[in-house]
Amino acid sequence: MADGTEAALRELSDYLGDDMAACNRAIVERMDSPVALIPQLAAHLVAAGGKRLRPLLTLASARLCGYEPGPARQRHVSLAACVEFIHTATLLHDDVVDDSLLRRGLASANAVFGNKASVLVGDFLFARSFQLMTDDGSLKVMAILSSASATIAEGEVLQMSTQNDLSTSVEQYLEVIHGKTAALFAAACRVGAVVADRPEAEELALESYGTNLGMAFQLVDDALDYAADQAILGKTVGDDFREGKITLPILAAYAAGSDEDRIFWRRVIEDSEQSPEDLDRALSLIESTDAIETTLNRAAVYAQAARDALEIFPESRLRRLLQDTAGYTVSRAR
Amino acid sequence: MADGTEAALRELSDYLGDDMAACNRAIVERMDSPVALIPQLAAHLVAAGGKRLRPLLTLASARLCGYEPGPARQRHVSLAACVEFIHTATLLHDDVVDDSLLRRGLASANAVFGNKASVLVGDFLFARSFQLMTDDGSLKVMAILSSASATIAEGEVLQMSTQNDLSTSVEQYLEVIHGKTAALFAAACRVGAVVADRPEAEELALESYGTNLGMAFQLVDDALDYAADQAILGKTVGDDFREGKITLPILAAYAAGSDEDRIFWRRVIEDSEQSPEDLDRALSLIESTDAIETTLNRAAVYAQAARDALEIFPESRLRRLLQDTAGYTVSRAR
Repeated sequence: MADGTEAALRELSDYLGDDMAACNRAIVERMDSPVALIPQLAAHLVAAGGKRLRPLLTLASARLCGYEPGPARQRHVSLAACVEFIHTATLLHDDVVDDSLLRRGLASANAVFGNKASVLVGDFLFARSFQLMTDDGSLKVMAILSSASATIAEGEVLQMSTQNDLSTSVEQYLEVIHGKTAALFAAACRVGAVVADRPEAEELALESYGTNLGMAFQLVDDALDYAADQAILGKTVGDDFREGKITLPILAAYAAGSDEDRIFWRRVIEDSEQSPEDLDRALSLIESTDAIETTLNRAAVYAQAARDALEIFPESRLRRLLQDTAGYTVSRAR
Repeated sequence: MADGTEAALRELSDYLGDDMAACNRAIVERMDSPVALIPQLAAHLVAAGGKRLRPLLTLASARLCGYEPGPARQRHVSLAACVEFIHTATLLHDDVVDDSLLRRGLASANAVFGNKASVLVGDFLFARSFQLMTDDGSLKVMAILSSASATIAEGEVLQMSTQNDLSTSVEQYLEVIHGKTAALFAAACRVGAVVADRPEAEELALESYGTNLGMAFQLVDDALDYAADQAILGKTVGDDFREGKITLPILAAYAAGSDEDRIFWRRVIEDSEQSPEDLDRALSLIESTDAIETTLNRAAVYAQAARDALEIFPESRLRRLLQDTAGYTVSRAR
């Protein structure tokens, strides 16, 4: 991980320090419920931290569009919390769907509290996110975030449908990651522009930034599942492999593989017949076919598109930080 | 099941036949998605039918308040579909949480499509319900339905927390059924009044009708789990017992039981140690302590309160049908 680029994200977070602190307070406040298990499970997630990338995007987008908050003018903060609730709800449900034991390097909520609690608290956070939108009162914001929520679910279902299926096309894979990741990045950015009440061109530019950043981010995440060590990644290496999840590293290695390699891939991915040494063989096939490089190159194209999308805004420190964040997304894996 | 009272519900459904047909069309249309598994799983649920009680309440409430639909004035229909989506999403997640194999007498969605698909399609329907609300455009409706959604999730989490716990109080049990059932009944009725733009007293009367009807409905459902045969109930008898779910029949039988009976209840409910003949013993203890009668008597009080709540409306066929429906809710179990 290149320190210079990781610094971009930290700098962005510091630049928006007051907003982020307010957002964190809003998250804790609005996760509360008289039903004790809800704040308990929520606290587990808050403690696990995470980069809070999505709310950061909402806050940064609002500021880039010149939104001037005041004591009674904190729409960007409550919508940033709302975006994080949607994200957290999908994480809780993902971990149930994937039977994941780790999340951000800690035991996942389902591992600690059980699948039932994770499903139900996910539903609660999802409902709460809609209460936050309702409190905000903008139909436009609601349309953006409710549509993103439906797209996320569609992406997750599509991902499930492609699982263990090596005939999945790269286009289908891109549709999956657009749904499961890029749609919420895009919505998070766009609602920031909406609260600032800016011309549609700026909304669309930020939406494009979010979409492309999200695509790059997920491609890199999928690459890291075969490339990073567990401490950096904060999750179990080879998770995707063991689940038979179809990601670009697999598709690229399969496409470039020999007949013998393909027999291997079909056994481990399509038939889910894996022995302990198969992950090593998979990693070596991925390396010999440059499948990680293929994945990261594609991510770099999206990252560049994200940077370009912001060119319609005048140069500023914030614009540079957002553009550097796009760069960081890819360089963290190189 | 008494035919005279079942007729009330059928008559209500017939009386609102055109509205219900429009609602069913809206449900099928808005369940659609380019991701094939979503309409497939949704069709399974639509095929399983069900009484569509909640959308019926929205349609009836709007009509009772004098809402006059037109070709471009179908808010009651799309909000009725929206209410059914919220309900269906919670059913899908419930069946995952409870590992249920049957739903309305057919194989449950999770049994056919797996838990993962049920979680994700539930999320999709939930998101779609918020899109329907957004399309409707009323912040008041959104506040009512998003708050009900959060309350449902809280009720489900509370139910999970009380599972296997015989020290659960009757008040806690009532809070659970208020959340898991009555809150959506109440919201379904109230939004009907909101679209008709009626004075708040009528909104509150319908909300009270819905709350009390929902409480009665769930109490009876919990009684039927120990009293009905599977063909009538459309679900496996003794499900609640096997799950150690705390419902009023159990609490009443435990409270009225001898020391020896209580040892039995603690073993089967708190320690989840059940052998095949234990359900029969539980049923006979429930019978000897009049626990079903206790439960149904309480349901009858709520049903009466539901009927009374509608007295502020002028007498009409529709009012009578809604009041008879409340009566039916209890008499179906007697």
